[in-house]
Amino acid sequence: MGHLKFKIIARDKHTKARTGLLELKHGIIKTPEFMPVATKASVKALTFDDLIKLDTQVLICNTYHLMLNPGAELIEKYGGLHGFMHWDKPILTDSGGFQVFSLGFGIENGTNKLFFSEDKLNLRKKGQSKVKITDDGVYFKVDDGKQYFLTPEKSIEIQEKLGADMILAFDECTCPTNTKEYTAESMERTHSWALRCMNAHKTDQALVGIIQGGEWQDLREKSARYIASLDFDGYAIGGSLGNTKDKMNQIIDWVINQLPEEKPRHLLGIGVVEDIFEGVERGIDLFDCVTPTRQARFGYVYVRPPLGNKNNKYNYKLTSVEYAGEFMPLDSNCTCNVCAKWSRDYIKHLYKSSELLAYNLISYHNLHFFLQLMREIRNSIENSTFLQLKKEWEL
Amino acid sequence: MGHLKFKIIARDKHTKARTGLLELKHGIIKTPEFMPVATKASVKALTFDDLIKLDTQVLICNTYHLMLNPGAELIEKYGGLHGFMHWDKPILTDSGGFQVFSLGFGIENGTNKLFFSEDKLNLRKKGQSKVKITDDGVYFKVDDGKQYFLTPEKSIEIQEKLGADMILAFDECTCPTNTKEYTAESMERTHSWALRCMNAHKTDQALVGIIQGGEWQDLREKSARYIASLDFDGYAIGGSLGNTKDKMNQIIDWVINQLPEEKPRHLLGIGVVEDIFEGVERGIDLFDCVTPTRQARFGYVYVRPPLGNKNNKYNYKLTSVEYAGEFMPLDSNCTCNVCAKWSRDYIKHLYKSSELLAYNLISYHNLHFFLQLMREIRNSIENSTFLQLKKEWEL
Repeated sequence: MGHLKFKIIARDKHTKARTGLLELKHGIIKTPEFMPVATKASVKALTFDDLIKLDTQVLICNTYHLMLNPGAELIEKYGGLHGFMHWDKPILTDSGGFQVFSLGFGIENGTNKLFFSEDKLNLRKKGQSKVKITDDGVYFKVDDGKQYFLTPEKSIEIQEKLGADMILAFDECTCPTNTKEYTAESMERTHSWALRCMNAHKTDQALVGIIQGGEWQDLREKSARYIASLDFDGYAIGGSLGNTKDKMNQIIDWVINQLPEEKPRHLLGIGVVEDIFEGVERGIDLFDCVTPTRQARFGYVYVRPPLGNKNNKYNYKLTSVEYAGEFMPLDSNCTCNVCAKWSRDYIKHLYKSSELLAYNLISYHNLHFFLQLMREIRNSIENSTFLQLKKEWEL
Repeated sequence: MGHLKFKIIARDKHTKARTGLLELKHGIIKTPEFMPVATKASVKALTFDDLIKLDTQVLICNTYHLMLNPGAELIEKYGGLHGFMHWDKPILTDSGGFQVFSLGFGIENGTNKLFFSEDKLNLRKKGQSKVKITDDGVYFKVDDGKQYFLTPEKSIEIQEKLGADMILAFDECTCPTNTKEYTAESMERTHSWALRCMNAHKTDQALVGIIQGGEWQDLREKSARYIASLDFDGYAIGGSLGNTKDKMNQIIDWVINQLPEEKPRHLLGIGVVEDIFEGVERGIDLFDCVTPTRQARFGYVYVRPPLGNKNNKYNYKLTSVEYAGEFMPLDSNCTCNVCAKWSRDYIKHLYKSSELLAYNLISYHNLHFFLQLMREIRNSIENSTFLQLKKEWEL
């Protein structure tokens, strides 16, 4: 077991939602929390001053990107990511698996759920995939043609060099188009890899096991039971969450029912407001996603109710609004530093002009949106008003 | 006369260098000073927090860019640039003239001295230029084909809407390939425009007159005398400064000899270390240039002696250095916040990965380089050790 203490502080009276204090080597995280992604050791467009001002509790970095550039060996020389990034709060790293299965196909930026595009699936079907999976591990080629072989042991070794507080077991990530048969086979491989990760793990980093099993109840329950039977410090739900919201919620319920209460649960790669509410309601403690900063770069601004709602996905496109000609922030219901100081007009002007400051200001606002939402969710759980808050968000 | 008080505080015993306090509506600037350029109402890649931490005293914005986008009318609704940018320290705007004569040809980013390319001169010769100069003003076309007519009165009107503390008279900017005959004719036009600017000027913004005359002593002296005879709040040296450093220094000397002691002097668009030293030595109080942030985006890092010298232009290319594998800042002689916290390795990694934070960190460091240099120059003038400092910089 690594350095991790998890204490449940409050439980919502009407749901499985809970707040907790997750103590890791570099600090304590109040949960439930949304973790911004610092893919290549930087949260895109934000400064570390920004992250501090935003009360960012924890960052998640991507092993896949960092093993390729600048390489784990260089980062190790700085005592790991904390020294390299000059960030002294908790850091998570993923195992690299997700990106191998998605970005190995050539897409180089991000960790969203949209990677199973038809094009890429066709490549895989035609055997032209740059990824080859064996029970030993995964061969993959990157754009420059160089071939890599990633195994559970190798992933743990790299993550130990990166030195995050909490690391993830190496798993195979399946997608909604995989058959039940393939998903079951892949799940068994993930289980054997989980054990190998555990055996390879030597440091005091907390190690999180990943639950697979796609959209099938028997597989998900089996995977959750197996992973829970191992001595992991926490659990993450990965792989296909089905094609509908109802399916996703069902899958979370199946899994959570098999997990012990006293360990933290991470729903991987989720960054949609609705999904965060549904996850928290079912007992999820951690979320991560690139949405706040990625959407910012595409000019999408997150907004709270009443401006934001389920239909507009709580955001609007900055270029779709007219200049107001008088001070109006990005969201008049937002309490962030950007909304206090700069007008939507100014930020729209910067965005239209491709000024880098636009990406910074919108990213700041968007990340505040998510972190503030999590603060309000934690508060509502402590007051057992979570469902009321959910209703206020029109969900 | 606009709101401007200029008090000379100290004079170097061995040169014409002087320090001063330049009081404008939004604050007092210690001179000599280098002014970062916020072309489109943002200093590229830097946050306003960064600018405050860097002790930035004043910003200069470009009228040309802002009149096109988002338009002076919108900015006026925010009480001018101060309200629009949320910046409460002094701001300068230029007249728009420089960009009309350079960027009017289709180049859209920046204000350097390299715009007189053969291609553009050929266009002008062939009559295909998008710029047409008359005694009334200048017609120019922008990329979308829209035609504008900028006159001295129009430039002042726009700059009044932008509301900077200090504004520049509208002039015609000549280049080194112009004949003496053309430069003389153009200079007379600039003089008549200077008078028209003065007559059009209604606010308490400080108004600066621009001296032209190319590289000819009689023209430069005539222009300086004429502009000095008008009731401007300060003087700027514009146009061609010749093709050599010696010529530039000569031109500055010719001009300064004709100017009264008690008003501030601005050498337009200068951002080379050597030129700053030579300018200060001759009595220049203000400089501005995009170099710190532009060079940062191209991966050039400014360094002080001994790493920096005249031959390497006080900078190196970040991608040309190897990873060190141990903490080494961008410049081990630098006292900036970036050099205190982040390694050259980390910043190189970010730069290679096209992370926006790279542009931010290098821009911060580079701007600190220039502002710190000016602080040391001011200090040396007060101690009459300016020439010693210049020698330490191997100049």
